[in-house]
Amino acid sequence: MDGRSADQIRPLQFQNHIAPHALGSTLVRWGNTHVICAVCCEEIVPRWMKEQGVEGGWLTAEYSMLPYSTSQRKPRDISRGKLEGRTQEIQRLIGRAMRAAVDLKLLGTRTLWVDCDVLQADGGTRTASITGSFVALSLAINKMMASGKLTKNPITQAVAAVSLGVVQKQILLDLNYVEDAAAEVDLNLVMTSKGEFIEVQGTAEKNAFSQAHLDNMLALGRKGIEQLIVAQNIAVQDFEKNIPNSPSCP
Amino acid sequence: MDGRSADQIRPLQFQNHIAPHALGSTLVRWGNTHVICAVCCEEIVPRWMKEQGVEGGWLTAEYSMLPYSTSQRKPRDISRGKLEGRTQEIQRLIGRAMRAAVDLKLLGTRTLWVDCDVLQADGGTRTASITGSFVALSLAINKMMASGKLTKNPITQAVAAVSLGVVQKQILLDLNYVEDAAAEVDLNLVMTSKGEFIEVQGTAEKNAFSQAHLDNMLALGRKGIEQLIVAQNIAVQDFEKNIPNSPSCP
Amino acid sequence: MDGRSADQIRPLQFQNHIAPHALGSTLVRWGNTHVICAVCCEEIVPRWMKEQGVEGGWLTAEYSMLPYSTSQRKPRDISRGKLEGRTQEIQRLIGRAMRAAVDLKLLGTRTLWVDCDVLQADGGTRTASITGSFVALSLAINKMMASGKLTKNPITQAVAAVSLGVVQKQILLDLNYVEDAAAEVDLNLVMTSKGEFIEVQGTAEKNAFSQAHLDNMLALGRKGIEQLIVAQNIAVQDFEKNIPNSPSCP
Amino acid sequence: MDGRSADQIRPLQFQNHIAPHALGSTLVRWGNTHVICAVCCEEIVPRWMKEQGVEGGWLTAEYSMLPYSTSQRKPRDISRGKLEGRTQEIQRLIGRAMRAAVDLKLLGTRTLWVDCDVLQADGGTRTASITGSFVALSLAINKMMASGKLTKNPITQAVAAVSLGVVQKQILLDLNYVEDAAAEVDLNLVMTSKGEFIEVQGTAEKNAFSQAHLDNMLALGRKGIEQLIVAQNIAVQDFEKNIPNSPSCP
Amino acid sequence: MDGRSADQIRPLQFQNHIAPHALGSTLVRWGNTHVICAVCCEEIVPRWMKEQGVEGGWLTAEYSMLPYSTSQRKPRDISRGKLEGRTQEIQRLIGRAMRAAVDLKLLGTRTLWVDCDVLQADGGTRTASITGSFVALSLAINKMMASGKLTKNPITQAVAAVSLGVVQKQILLDLNYVEDAAAEVDLNLVMTSKGEFIEVQGTAEKNAFSQAHLDNMLALGRKGIEQLIVAQNIAVQDFEKNIPNSPSCP
Amino acid sequence: MDGRSADQIRPLQFQNHIAPHALGSTLVRWGNTHVICAVCCEEIVPRWMKEQGVEGGWLTAEYSMLPYSTSQRKPRDISRGKLEGRTQEIQRLIGRAMRAAVDLKLLGTRTLWVDCDVLQADGGTRTASITGSFVALSLAINKMMASGKLTKNPITQAVAAVSLGVVQKQILLDLNYVEDAAAEVDLNLVMTSKGEFIEVQGTAEKNAFSQAHLDNMLALGRKGIEQLIVAQNIAVQDFEKNIPNSPSCP
Repeated sequence: MDGRSADQIRPLQFQNHIAPHALGSTLVRWGNTHVICAVCCEEIVPRWMKEQGVEGGWLTAEYSMLPYSTSQRKPRDISRGKLEGRTQEIQRLIGRAMRAAVDLKLLGTRTLWVDCDVLQADGGTRTASITGSFVALSLAINKMMASGKLTKNPITQAVAAVSLGVVQKQILLDLNYVEDAAAEVDLNLVMTSKGEFIEVQGTAEKNAFSQAHLDNMLALGRKGIEQLIVAQNIAVQDFEKNIPNSPSCP
Repeated sequence: MDGRSADQIRPLQFQNHIAPHALGSTLVRWGNTHVICAVCCEEIVPRWMKEQGVEGGWLTAEYSMLPYSTSQRKPRDISRGKLEGRTQEIQRLIGRAMRAAVDLKLLGTRTLWVDCDVLQADGGTRTASITGSFVALSLAINKMMASGKLTKNPITQAVAAVSLGVVQKQILLDLNYVEDAAAEVDLNLVMTSKGEFIEVQGTAEKNAFSQAHLDNMLALGRKGIEQLIVAQNIAVQDFEKNIPNSPSCP
Repeated sequence: MDGRSADQIRPLQFQNHIAPHALGSTLVRWGNTHVICAVCCEEIVPRWMKEQGVEGGWLTAEYSMLPYSTSQRKPRDISRGKLEGRTQEIQRLIGRAMRAAVDLKLLGTRTLWVDCDVLQADGGTRTASITGSFVALSLAINKMMASGKLTKNPITQAVAAVSLGVVQKQILLDLNYVEDAAAEVDLNLVMTSKGEFIEVQGTAEKNAFSQAHLDNMLALGRKGIEQLIVAQNIAVQDFEKNIPNSPSCP
Repeated sequence: MDGRSADQIRPLQFQNHIAPHALGSTLVRWGNTHVICAVCCEEIVPRWMKEQGVEGGWLTAEYSMLPYSTSQRKPRDISRGKLEGRTQEIQRLIGRAMRAAVDLKLLGTRTLWVDCDVLQADGGTRTASITGSFVALSLAINKMMASGKLTKNPITQAVAAVSLGVVQKQILLDLNYVEDAAAEVDLNLVMTSKGEFIEVQGTAEKNAFSQAHLDNMLALGRKGIEQLIVAQNIAVQDFEKNIPNSPSCP
Repeated sequence: MDGRSADQIRPLQFQNHIAPHALGSTLVRWGNTHVICAVCCEEIVPRWMKEQGVEGGWLTAEYSMLPYSTSQRKPRDISRGKLEGRTQEIQRLIGRAMRAAVDLKLLGTRTLWVDCDVLQADGGTRTASITGSFVALSLAINKMMASGKLTKNPITQAVAAVSLGVVQKQILLDLNYVEDAAAEVDLNLVMTSKGEFIEVQGTAEKNAFSQAHLDNMLALGRKGIEQLIVAQNIAVQDFEKNIPNSPSCP
Repeated sequence: MDGRSADQIRPLQFQNHIAPHALGSTLVRWGNTHVICAVCCEEIVPRWMKEQGVEGGWLTAEYSMLPYSTSQRKPRDISRGKLEGRTQEIQRLIGRAMRAAVDLKLLGTRTLWVDCDVLQADGGTRTASITGSFVALSLAINKMMASGKLTKNPITQAVAAVSLGVVQKQILLDLNYVEDAAAEVDLNLVMTSKGEFIEVQGTAEKNAFSQAHLDNMLALGRKGIEQLIVAQNIAVQDFEKNIPNSPSCP
């Protein structure tokens, strides 16, 4: 609909260091979906880890749509007094995805906070959040390695996410808002640089989908993920060649 | 672990009419997971339907674990002042699954409320809730047909759900709590009597999973769903032969 | 109105062990009022006991109407964000009544949680909750005695509750919903197996009531309580003869 | 303990017009318990009255302890985010008591708000609130009669309240804080100028109480109520002889 | 408008000891604005002081308008579930003003709570709260000195507050509600007995104001503050000559 | 401390159009304080305007610190469940400042939402929010003029804000975080392009300040404001010469 072929992802850019007080941050611009992804570090772990005697660190994520990210202004969560179910689902998904990229045992007694704030929404905010968060996380880990906080890199594999849908019986990769609203089936994939699955979330509100549709979406999604992981790699490496002078883990 | 083979579902029973003031209700006992599923009807629709001019009815679901459903007492949501993210995820899932079973246009200007309250939890409370809710929903729809509220049956297909997991590299069907806690991969499937997918939710917190593992889980899950749909059918039909005298839609 | 004489209580049944993860539980069916009563145990006491140096244990109660317990669906407390005043009154009443049945000093440093969830409401949910909770409490205490958690039985007396009302100048025992809505005076009695009062709560929203009416209600209520205590006794003893294998205090 | 005999109420004073913007107000000083009671009027009724087609007006009450009313500062309700169960019980009781004094049909389409704020607490704040609120209500109704808002006086009878207790087997009337803390039984009576009961609330946390104790408390309470009603009468009439110039119902 | 000249403050009275359980209290009547100011003491300090190792004590303030303080009843904060922004601004202002009057180091490990509850509002509730709170605070400190809790008086200077406004280009001192509603500019001054500023808060919602207007308001305000400090002095000293027997710091 | 003279403001930059779905937006970078300012429009007005019959439009502001804006991560408002008093104060201040720049009567029946989200905090976030919001507001108004939504420009004057402080008896303009933490006096000025005051907020937590200090701060602040207004002008005009194609008021 926007000039792309059905198997083409939208243009993807990372503007790193957008939030200079974070340990790592990037503004991911994926088509017209723009998300600030930032990683902060606290030198404590959640109470349940202490109570249950779990060693190592933790990673948790929060997600929010800024009120001016949608064409009709979206009221802030605090003005409604509670998080929407959709927001909770997305931030839990981001957290699980990022934890899959890291060996928490190697983090030390620390919590990494991954924050994703949507500046502009045009479909795929959860996949952009995950794909951008991995870049911000890599930058943060690099900072911690450089400052001697970490001696062994805890990142075990790259993680990226992409959406797929069935619109009028055609399978589309990386749906924008208009395409997403028209889709009969909505599939979000989170995959690793090793080609394995972290999350497969397929939903049919309009029509149930067949095994064949699922298989085709999985195959197309796999190709998209490969491109995303290349882009993440470049974003981290180019940036690190000329690393800005920024705060270490407080 | 509990004497079953890896591809065997736990024993399943429905005690219909457990909540006599509901339009349809069942106490589903699936192994040691027991859930009250009840369907009520209100003669209104949500405000957004009126505002957006959407015709027909609506269906929404709520899920809760009763405090005595776990071996360590679980505090009520109200005592913490908010819903857990997990609870919101589950009740949104139940709602989507039940809406996939019904042609909302045929409901009239009504909302069906599907309530699931867990009496005893031993793994698979979300799949038991979905599988039981379809029985309660069928009973409720039959009541509305019998009373003349509905003239055309809005149910388009049966819907059931089952969980799968990978435990020590072996694929298991219908995990109980102990198995679930040990699983590296967790997959929940919601499928229809026509063999199509409503939801595919696969998650890997411990280890990413391969395409082959996913394919094998999908195949085994399909067999489980077929058995569940047979059991649902019997539960509704046996009960209706000797229908109790219960309240119609208020 | 439902074929009973004015001094007759509705049929009363206890289905014990309805919530197998609780320490003691019963589904009390009193006419068309059905309430799940369950007792759980935590090996801690409230902070105020520690701060004030109070020895022994504690017992507290929570009450809720399940959304499908009324003919018009009742929204869950959590969806309104707070407990109704009526709910708070009832759960405080249940707590006081049960504490009157137990020597808290003999409990040890433990809290017993009494949970009452109404499955179907037809008047008298608070009296059914109290009368059923005493059965669940007895079963829980028996379990704790059997497992050696307790060496001396802390139950000092049986406790039961019944409602009375004045409808068109006639005194009725154990009102159902229709009778309750028509009553000018509403009296709830909580009494012991020794014939003494725990609670006397008489309220006149429509017309004030005289000393004579009060005296007559108290006399009739006393007879009702005696029957309830017989029924409780049978429920506990019959059940214990063939005690199921269930969890001990965690 | 404070020099009174067991059947003597503490000194009672009313300082009317303490809150000049209210329609009627009094500062009741009953021993060392001081409560501001004020009545305001809104020219609307609650939504449920309109929805159910109930005619006439409504009366509702709110109760609060000011933070400096107790010797240890009591945090405000808003700082804890919710009303205590005790507060809700008391304000519901005040509301029922005041509604029993008024023919709501004669109020017109109005809501009377009865607010009770405790300045100093020394036992019996709920009975002081009820006894003082009736004075404030009478002043408010007189103002509405004088301004022509009402043509027929809706007050049908005076209402007052007193507490009783059993302390070391002796029955005491009108307990102060120290006596209340020591009481085995706590009875609150709300009665009318006609000698009938509005509320009888007897509670035994420590020891159950016998029929004889109840009968004796009721008899002694009746004498207390008679004195209170005389004092209320004087407070209203003396004040009205020299009525201050104050705001009418807005 | 009410017979005063533009540079005249409204009549000011202090009725000390209005809340006998507080350590110090006064009912300040400033024109038709009446506020209860009370000071309580807790023998603890906030957690952040301990965490940051700050020595000495703390002082914090809370402000509330009683529901009957305005001609149209004002709902309680708790019924809306949160504090208004205006309320928070005012109580933060009162706290800062009172902390400026006290050497917190000399308080010991204690928190002083300053509570202001408006009985009747007619403009200037925040300036009345500050001016009255200093009287209550002085009484409380005197009590703590008399009882030996404090050995050195921590009060360093008197603090009072007054409002000014520009109404139809004329500068007015100490605005009542009608004047305040008409003002183009609103200035609140908190000043010390030494003639210095604690707070200068000038706001123009209608029209911006010039340097000349600001200078003239500051000069007129200074004169008002001088009168207030004289009145505070008298209120404390007269009262202390015949000090009532009241509670010391618990 | 950072190489500036005491009367020099930090470098100021505006990156307009940072939030493409807003009607007008800018990322203001003022030293190391970075704030996203965005203006959205709704075609409705608040209920109180309708109820009180006020004509024209409304403007309201919200302010938030993103969690990664401070070197120690700041939890989101929603995780604490309520707005801090400081946040409420700031957003009320921004709203008043922006309303002073606009003739609300000329807006039509619309609400403008001004949102300020702090990306990086280094002192002066409220003055940066105000100064940046005026740029975003100007861009939004220009868009509404260009699209024909407005026919007469409602902006009546430019508005900017700057902070001042007294540090070790020296007056400083535009304090960064380290300077602000050390300041004895804190003054925030909001002024117009005509050299008049919108807000004067001076606060002394540590030491009261004299008339002379106040006069000197006001004079220095005036010079700072003049520079800010020049910078705002350039930011709006340069941008508008090459206006991007962006959404009009929905």
